[in-house]
Amino acid sequence: MTATPPDASDAAGRTVSHETIAIERTFDATPGQVYRAFADPASKARWFAGDPSFTDERYELDFRIGGRETSSARLGDDGSTFLYDARYEDIVPDVRIVIAYTMLMDERRISASLQTIELLPAGAQTRLILTEQMAILDGLDSAASRQHGLGELLDALDAELRRSTAPAAG
Amino acid sequence: MTATPPDASDAAGRTVSHETIAIERTFDATPGQVYRAFADPASKARWFAGDPSFTDERYELDFRIGGRETSSARLGDDGSTFLYDARYEDIVPDVRIVIAYTMLMDERRISASLQTIELLPAGAQTRLILTEQMAILDGLDSAASRQHGLGELLDALDAELRRSTAPAAG
Repeated sequence: MTATPPDASDAAGRTVSHETIAIERTFDATPGQVYRAFADPASKARWFAGDPSFTDERYELDFRIGGRETSSARLGDDGSTFLYDARYEDIVPDVRIVIAYTMLMDERRISASLQTIELLPAGAQTRLILTEQMAILDGLDSAASRQHGLGELLDALDAELRRSTAPAAG
Repeated sequence: MTATPPDASDAAGRTVSHETIAIERTFDATPGQVYRAFADPASKARWFAGDPSFTDERYELDFRIGGRETSSARLGDDGSTFLYDARYEDIVPDVRIVIAYTMLMDERRISASLQTIELLPAGAQTRLILTEQMAILDGLDSAASRQHGLGELLDALDAELRRSTAPAAG
């Protein structure tokens, strides 16, 4: 359920709430392999912008500090349009990525976030720690929906890593 | 005391810690007057970039959603150089401002932050709520020093507001 959008000129309807979400996952891949799934535009597009419940997806990635990443899509054939508009604040290859981004729904800003992704070697695997610091605007987004969405993205990353690190068929 | 900077290639020395700081202040000014002290480049430069303990200050502000703000300065005559590199994520005139920014010390990234400033009318005054969501990089920044620095900035904003809203001398 979506909250009723407040009138743009109505200060009384304008609220901000702050949340921090932390998600941990372990992947059967090295930190370098996980990092490449974020840094390589073709790989990232496969798992980050390939959700079949969306249409009209457009994805662009300029993976460098200060570089921009945008993803826009419509939910179904006539649903709301979502825009993810991100900028890379810090990148340490194979180690961490920090991005700041805004989410828009039908051109209305619904949240701003600082997202930190840390990659820690764990034997032959990689432990990924995602920390999402959110400012939820006017009650139009939620920590629960963000946590759900990030979980689905990390499922898609796992599938991408299984595909890209699988031994070639004989 | 400053932590020893880790080697750029040393993953083991790379850490991120997350903090949320909240500061509240009440100003003898309307939300519109407080907002203008953020939005007007000349006014903002006076209170935001005028710290006398710094030299070589350079300040630029492009106050619009997606616009950039930078401030650089050296501590004393031969101290460290600091760079504040910000982008406006959301602006609602007289109501709120959300920025994402990175702090660099001697060209090393020491923190990334999402900062929300909310302006609430309180009778003839304005209650300002500043919420700072920080990712502290490699132990090179701290919530305590940020809280101290933000407190000094809000003192300077208070002085700017007293100056700009004072009745003209007769």
